[in-house]
Amino acid sequence: MLILVANLGSTSFKYKLLDVSGDLQSPDVRPDDRVLARGAVERIGDASTSRCEVTIGDYHNESEMPVPDHGVAVQACLDQLTDPQNGCLKDAAEVSAIGFKAVHGGRKSGTFLVDDDVLDAMAEMNAAAPAHNPPYIAAMKLLRERFPDLPLVAAFETEFHDTIPEARRAYAIPSQWRQDYQVQKWGFHGSSHRFIAERAAELLGREDAKIISCHLGGSSSLTAIESGKSVMTTMGMTPQTGLPQNNRVGDFDPFALPLLIERTGQSLESLLKQLASEGGLKGLSERSGDLRDIEAAADEGDAKSQLALSVFVEEIRRHMGGMIVAMGGLDAIVFTGGIGENSEVVRQAVCANLDNLGIAIDSSKNLNHRSESKQSGGEGSLHDGSSNVQIWVIPTNEEWIVAKRAKKAIGS
Amino acid sequence: MLILVANLGSTSFKYKLLDVSGDLQSPDVRPDDRVLARGAVERIGDASTSRCEVTIGDYHNESEMPVPDHGVAVQACLDQLTDPQNGCLKDAAEVSAIGFKAVHGGRKSGTFLVDDDVLDAMAEMNAAAPAHNPPYIAAMKLLRERFPDLPLVAAFETEFHDTIPEARRAYAIPSQWRQDYQVQKWGFHGSSHRFIAERAAELLGREDAKIISCHLGGSSSLTAIESGKSVMTTMGMTPQTGLPQNNRVGDFDPFALPLLIERTGQSLESLLKQLASEGGLKGLSERSGDLRDIEAAADEGDAKSQLALSVFVEEIRRHMGGMIVAMGGLDAIVFTGGIGENSEVVRQAVCANLDNLGIAIDSSKNLNHRSESKQSGGEGSLHDGSSNVQIWVIPTNEEWIVAKRAKKAIGS
Repeated sequence: MLILVANLGSTSFKYKLLDVSGDLQSPDVRPDDRVLARGAVERIGDASTSRCEVTIGDYHNESEMPVPDHGVAVQACLDQLTDPQNGCLKDAAEVSAIGFKAVHGGRKSGTFLVDDDVLDAMAEMNAAAPAHNPPYIAAMKLLRERFPDLPLVAAFETEFHDTIPEARRAYAIPSQWRQDYQVQKWGFHGSSHRFIAERAAELLGREDAKIISCHLGGSSSLTAIESGKSVMTTMGMTPQTGLPQNNRVGDFDPFALPLLIERTGQSLESLLKQLASEGGLKGLSERSGDLRDIEAAADEGDAKSQLALSVFVEEIRRHMGGMIVAMGGLDAIVFTGGIGENSEVVRQAVCANLDNLGIAIDSSKNLNHRSESKQSGGEGSLHDGSSNVQIWVIPTNEEWIVAKRAKKAIGS
Repeated sequence: MLILVANLGSTSFKYKLLDVSGDLQSPDVRPDDRVLARGAVERIGDASTSRCEVTIGDYHNESEMPVPDHGVAVQACLDQLTDPQNGCLKDAAEVSAIGFKAVHGGRKSGTFLVDDDVLDAMAEMNAAAPAHNPPYIAAMKLLRERFPDLPLVAAFETEFHDTIPEARRAYAIPSQWRQDYQVQKWGFHGSSHRFIAERAAELLGREDAKIISCHLGGSSSLTAIESGKSVMTTMGMTPQTGLPQNNRVGDFDPFALPLLIERTGQSLESLLKQLASEGGLKGLSERSGDLRDIEAAADEGDAKSQLALSVFVEEIRRHMGGMIVAMGGLDAIVFTGGIGENSEVVRQAVCANLDNLGIAIDSSKNLNHRSESKQSGGEGSLHDGSSNVQIWVIPTNEEWIVAKRAKKAIGS
């Protein structure tokens, strides 16, 4: 069974084609071996031409063509996959479903065949996820019309967090707001944290471990995982909260808003837009939202970049501490995502000075991780021999989780 | 030297008269012995009469009189203190200053003689502390006119937190907002946390301890204290954030606001007002903002009260964990404030299941604390013999800190 997993932006369509045949619980199943193809279409809707890219095994192709909407993008992708010479499919009908890493469904938290109710539930959350939900809804509607026989599956990023206890999900708000408007701590990055939960259990050789999954990248969140289940996470009602993101503020005091409205003369809408585009690492560094740029500038002595880096690390540590107390202990810290997999500086600083808590990183393992983990696909441990808590880098694979969930959804 | 320490509400004036003569660093100085009188005036400005209450040693008096403003309230208090028969002063001029536990001065964080600049700085923060700053400003202006020879001292609640490192004070916002509008994590309850820092150092017999001060009451905050200095706190730009309060929300996702505006049809102002008056323990329990009512109802099986209690405890634990990681360890937890000093249930739950972190509460000491600490004025330890971390109850004394700081301010 083949699932096309789609990652949508308002003007982009990235995908992987995965084979989810057979028993996926088998220890011999290596997710990376199940990727048949991957590709991307950029600048969708652009007046001129879009770039369509595909990689199938050793074959790589880039072409330019007009792509007015996401329907044409999917058609272009299917054409590339069924190309008689270089494609990997005989017929587009071999694709059993398109799986979407959908963001916020509010009352629909889970994995669902896309229908009117799912689309309505997503639209109800548009104001909470304005950058994420609208492009998904538009593309899903279009694809439903254009490919009526191809099942579309929404695997919501909130689903993995459905196991968080109510006392860690509820804001201290009038309870009607929760019932009627779904205002609670939902949490996101569920596919990534679920992948880490599954893979860490294999690597630790136990199902009941207490793990903190640090998904650090363009957007970042931590999740506390106990016995494979999410029990706490850093993002809340919206993906704008929790850790500072590349250009989004993270946790912020809403009662500062009236003062900012009064003093800047700006509207709430304008201020929130700035907090979600001019905040985070970009706002603090006044330089870049890309941690690589910030690390380089900090290294050269730029004070604002040093502050940005320190705030990011302090916030990770603050949330990490909350999770250690919530779980009453810790067995492993896992780093994943673009920053988690690649930033020696962040990993070292996050784990620094925690010997009293039984957490000790091996600085040399950390520094050499990238070069020494090539054989293992970037996976490897960083803890010192004295550490009670294991420290790992595990490259995440969100598409694998979405594909597995889509398989289950169309089977049921 | 005598300092009158004032605690103002918009319609109330509570005070203590403290003797701050001599060397206050001496270990023989017991703050409780330095309170000469205490009193309160309620329902100020009410059309009918106000209640004026005073206690001087064993003498207690309550009287009714019209008190149209805070100036009249202070005059009534001075009249009671200089009463020839029962008073403790010969002349009102024996009072060297009025010290105010002022809340938010933004750019003026410290202890200052009240002048136009201090009043301006407080007014700039009105929108951030709408329930606290305006009544203080009004009363200070009035008292300055009415008692021109009596120095007024503002001891801001933010001052103790001036030692928090920048990386734990900065929000991930455009840096101009911090420079121009003072938007950063200020922290409050500074006088209480400073008292705990001083007293805990005495009880632990060391100056360099790592302490978490849990000020839990009508409003609540935690502060991490290292070597006597605040290094992290839970409240932020405003006193509405951090832990859930009796009727204020605490930490909340500002990006939920556009959705609430859209769905409820209410204004931002109205929503924030509800979050600051219908949230917190009151909002969750839908019953009461008073923890005693909630504990009683939870005990009888009321699910919403049980949730309110659980959320409160989970949030304390979450922030406590952040502080343990920030300090890289912990020597003592101190409970203070109305809830911290009196709720066995909250203390037990906050410390539960933390043996892995070296934190073990002695349940029987905790349960019997109130009855067994009468001789020590409510002070006592709760940790089990096996605990690496000491656990204490220390009744706070904010007025003592304000009085000491006022003495210093008028001396300089």
